[in-house]
Amino acid sequence: MNSSSPVAKLAAELFGTFWLVFGGCGSAIFAAKQIAMATDGGDNYQVGIGYLGVALAFGLTVVTMAYAVGHISGGHFNPAITLGAVIGGRMSWKELPGYWIAQVVGGLLAGLLLLIIASGKDGFERIGGMAANGYGDNSPDGYSLVAVLIAEILLTAFFLLVVLGTTGGKAPSTFAPLAIGLCLTLIHLISIPISNTSVNPARSTAVAFFNGDGAPGQLWMFWVAPLIGGLIGGLLYPLLFEDGKLKIGATTSS
Amino acid sequence: MNSSSPVAKLAAELFGTFWLVFGGCGSAIFAAKQIAMATDGGDNYQVGIGYLGVALAFGLTVVTMAYAVGHISGGHFNPAITLGAVIGGRMSWKELPGYWIAQVVGGLLAGLLLLIIASGKDGFERIGGMAANGYGDNSPDGYSLVAVLIAEILLTAFFLLVVLGTTGGKAPSTFAPLAIGLCLTLIHLISIPISNTSVNPARSTAVAFFNGDGAPGQLWMFWVAPLIGGLIGGLLYPLLFEDGKLKIGATTSS
Amino acid sequence: MNSSSPVAKLAAELFGTFWLVFGGCGSAIFAAKQIAMATDGGDNYQVGIGYLGVALAFGLTVVTMAYAVGHISGGHFNPAITLGAVIGGRMSWKELPGYWIAQVVGGLLAGLLLLIIASGKDGFERIGGMAANGYGDNSPDGYSLVAVLIAEILLTAFFLLVVLGTTGGKAPSTFAPLAIGLCLTLIHLISIPISNTSVNPARSTAVAFFNGDGAPGQLWMFWVAPLIGGLIGGLLYPLLFEDGKLKIGATTSS
Amino acid sequence: MNSSSPVAKLAAELFGTFWLVFGGCGSAIFAAKQIAMATDGGDNYQVGIGYLGVALAFGLTVVTMAYAVGHISGGHFNPAITLGAVIGGRMSWKELPGYWIAQVVGGLLAGLLLLIIASGKDGFERIGGMAANGYGDNSPDGYSLVAVLIAEILLTAFFLLVVLGTTGGKAPSTFAPLAIGLCLTLIHLISIPISNTSVNPARSTAVAFFNGDGAPGQLWMFWVAPLIGGLIGGLLYPLLFEDGKLKIGATTSS
Repeated sequence: MNSSSPVAKLAAELFGTFWLVFGGCGSAIFAAKQIAMATDGGDNYQVGIGYLGVALAFGLTVVTMAYAVGHISGGHFNPAITLGAVIGGRMSWKELPGYWIAQVVGGLLAGLLLLIIASGKDGFERIGGMAANGYGDNSPDGYSLVAVLIAEILLTAFFLLVVLGTTGGKAPSTFAPLAIGLCLTLIHLISIPISNTSVNPARSTAVAFFNGDGAPGQLWMFWVAPLIGGLIGGLLYPLLFEDGKLKIGATTSS
Repeated sequence: MNSSSPVAKLAAELFGTFWLVFGGCGSAIFAAKQIAMATDGGDNYQVGIGYLGVALAFGLTVVTMAYAVGHISGGHFNPAITLGAVIGGRMSWKELPGYWIAQVVGGLLAGLLLLIIASGKDGFERIGGMAANGYGDNSPDGYSLVAVLIAEILLTAFFLLVVLGTTGGKAPSTFAPLAIGLCLTLIHLISIPISNTSVNPARSTAVAFFNGDGAPGQLWMFWVAPLIGGLIGGLLYPLLFEDGKLKIGATTSS
Repeated sequence: MNSSSPVAKLAAELFGTFWLVFGGCGSAIFAAKQIAMATDGGDNYQVGIGYLGVALAFGLTVVTMAYAVGHISGGHFNPAITLGAVIGGRMSWKELPGYWIAQVVGGLLAGLLLLIIASGKDGFERIGGMAANGYGDNSPDGYSLVAVLIAEILLTAFFLLVVLGTTGGKAPSTFAPLAIGLCLTLIHLISIPISNTSVNPARSTAVAFFNGDGAPGQLWMFWVAPLIGGLIGGLLYPLLFEDGKLKIGATTSS
Repeated sequence: MNSSSPVAKLAAELFGTFWLVFGGCGSAIFAAKQIAMATDGGDNYQVGIGYLGVALAFGLTVVTMAYAVGHISGGHFNPAITLGAVIGGRMSWKELPGYWIAQVVGGLLAGLLLLIIASGKDGFERIGGMAANGYGDNSPDGYSLVAVLIAEILLTAFFLLVVLGTTGGKAPSTFAPLAIGLCLTLIHLISIPISNTSVNPARSTAVAFFNGDGAPGQLWMFWVAPLIGGLIGGLLYPLLFEDGKLKIGATTSS
C-alpha cells in the first residue's frame, strides 16, 4: 500500500468515495421505489429494489473499488475508517487530513452528479429526495436522536473490527474487500430504517446540502457518531485481538 | 487457531455472537416490514427487506466476523457449532464451557442493545417483537412442535457438515467463512416461516426473555434441537468423509 | 478428487443432492409466498422470499456443499453434470451409475423429509404444492413444451460450460464452487417462470411423485432435456476451449 | 490469456456475450414481474424478481462466464470493455474488430433465442417486451436524453476502472471475475430505471430490433455513451493509478 504515490492514493480515495455515494445513494434515489405495470394486466407491480437492493448497492461499491484500487490507498472511502486505521496502527496521522479531504470532495462531486441526473426526470423533488441521513423526524422510521447515536456508534465500531480484522496479518486478506463491502451491506440491512444508515461522514456530507429538509442541521450527528465508533473500533481491535498494546498512528504494520 | 490467547478467543466468540444476534435479529426487528410512500404517489410501497433480507443479514454477520476474528477462535458464534467441533475432533472438551458462556453473554448483550435502540421509536411493542424463535402458535407460519424439531435438527446437522467440511485439511479453507455464512443464509431462506430459524441456542436465548410472549417457555426446543443436530453433524462428518474413525475432543487436528 | 474412497464419494453425492433438493425445493415450499401483518397496521405485508430467494437458495445449496465435500466427489449433485463430466473427459463411465443412483436416492429422501415437515402445518396441500417442474399447464407461467425443452437444454449446456470451465486446469478452481453455485442461482432467476427450473433430473424426480398433479407424467422431459444439455456442454467445452479433441470418459485429467 | 488460439478467444467472447444477454435480458423478460396466488388465499402475491433480481442476473452472467472462459479471452463480453482494454494497454488494436463482431453476433443469437422461448407463452407481446434500452419516452422512469447520456458514460467509465484495476498486476486477480460481475450488478441497481441499463453496446444491439417500439432509433445512444465511457475509463486508469503514462494498444502487459 505504501509504495503508491500520494497523488494516486488521494485519487483512489476520491474516486472510491465518489463511487460509494453515487452507487449507494444513487440506487436509493433512482431505484428503491419503482412501480411498473404487470405484464398480466395488474397495474401496481413493485419492481423497485427496496432497502435490500440499496444495502447491496452500498456494499458493492466498496467490494468493487476496494478490489480495484484498495491496493493503492487501502480503500477506506470513509473518514471514520481512516480514523480507525490510524488509531489501530495501520497508517500515520499525517496522512489523515489528505484522505478526509479527498473523501469529502469525492462524495460532494457524486452528490452533484446525482442531482444533475435526477433532475433529468420530470417531477423530481430535490428537497428530501437525496437520500440524506437523519434522526427524529428525519429518521425513515422515526427513531430518536439517542437511538440513532447508539446505532451509528455501535455499527461503525463493528465495521472497524471487520476492517482491521480482515486486513491484519493473519486473516486471508485477499477476501478483505469482499468481507468489508458485505459488512457495509449488512449494516444497511440493519439500520436504513433507523438513520438511513451513515457510518460514513463523507457519505452524509455528500448529500445533506443538496437534500436540505433538515439534513444540514443534523449533519453533526453523522460526523460525531461514526467518528466515535471508528475510534472505539480502532482502540478495541489491538487491545482484544492483537498483542494488547495500542499502536496509534504506527506506520510499520500493514 | 490455537496460538491465540484464551482471552482473545473468548472475546472473539463474545463479539462474534453479539454481532450475529445484533445484525440478524436486528434486521428482522428494524427492517423486515417497512412501508414507504412511493415517489409517484402510491401510498403503500414495500421497501422492507423481508425474510430474504433477514436471511442475508444473518449470513453476513458470520461472513464478516469469521473473516475478521475466525483465525483467533475458529469463529463459531454458536454453541451447537462448538459442540459439533468437539465431537468432530477439531477442539477439546475443556474449551467448550468457556465458548458457550461467551456466546450466551454476547448474545444477551446484543438482545439488550436491540431493545434499547428499538425503544427509541414511538409505539415499539417489545412483547412478541424481538424476533424470538417458536413452534406451534409461536411459529411464524404455524408449524407443529414435531416439524420444528425435525427441521432444526436436520438444518443444524447439515450446518455442521458444511463447517467441518470447509475447515478440514483438503478443502480451500480461505473460503470457509464465506461458505459457512452463506450456509446460514440458506438455512434462513428455508426455515424462517417454520421456526423463525434458530440452529443456534445462543441466538434463541439472546432474545427469548426480552420477547416474552411464550418464547421463554419454548426455549428448551432451541437448545435441544440444535445441539442434537450439532452432535449428529459432528459424528457424521468424520465417519463419512474422513477416515471413518471418530475422534471426539481431539486437539491435534485443525 | 480420486483419492477418496468410493463410499465417501457416493455419500458426498447423496448428501449433496439431499441438500440441493431440501434447500432449494424447501425454500420454495416453505418460504416463497409469505404474508405477514405489517408492524404499522397494514395487513398484507409480503415477507416471502419470492423467486429471487428460491434462486439464491438453490445456488447456495451447491456453494455450501461443493466447498464442503466437492473435494471428495467433485460435487455434482446432478445426473446431467455427471454425464457432462464424463463426456468432457473429467471422470470415467464406470463411475456414472453409482453417482446417478446416489443422486436420485438423496433427492428422494429430501422430498420425503420435505413432505413430513410441510405436513406439520395445518392446511398444507401436498398435491401441486411440492415445487415440481412442468411445462404447458404445469409451467408456472404457461410456457409450451417446446419452449421448456429449448430452455432446459440451453441452460443445462451453459451450466456444463461453467462447470467444466471453472474446474479445468487454467481457471482459478478454488472459486469453482462459488461460480457453479451462483450459476445455478442465475439459471433459476431466468427460468423459474418457464419450467420451475430443473436442469437436474434428480431434483425433478425427488418431488414429482410427492407433488402429483401431472408432474409424474411430465418427468421424462426433465431427464431428457437436462441430459441432452449436459451432453452438448460436455462436447462443446473441449472442442472449443481445450485442445479441440474430445476425450470422453478419460480418467487422467482433473 | 495470450496463449489461447484466436478461435477459442472469439468463441469465448461469443458464448459469453450470448450468456450475458440471454441471462440478463432473459431474467427481465421472463421473471421480473410475476404474480402468483398466495398459499393462504390472497390472490396478488408478487413472486417476481424485480429490478434487484435482474441486476443480480446480469452480474452473475459475467461472474460465471468470466470464471469459466475469462482465462481464454479476458472475459469482456462487451465492446466498451474491449475498447477500454485497448486504450488501457491490456490488448492490441488488431484484436478489437474480431472481439466486437463476436460480441454482437453472440448477443443477437441470444436475442433470437429469447424471442423463440418467449413466444412459447400465449399472449407474449414482442413489441416493447424484449428488455431494450431507451431514453426519454423509452426510459423506464422517464429520464431525459441528457440524463441517460451522463449516466451511461459515467457508469461505463467506472466499470472500466474496476475492470482495469482488478486485472492489473498488483490486485488479487483471482477475484476479478467476482468483482467485475458484481460491478455490473451494482450498475444495474443504480440505473435500470434510468435507461434500463446498457453500458454494453452488444447487449443493446442484441434486443433492439426484436423489441422495436423506438429502440432501434435510439440504439446510437447505447453505442456512443458506453464507448465514450470505456474510452474515459481506459485513459484514466493508467494516468491515475499506474505510472501516469498512457500505453494505448500495448500488448506486453496482462
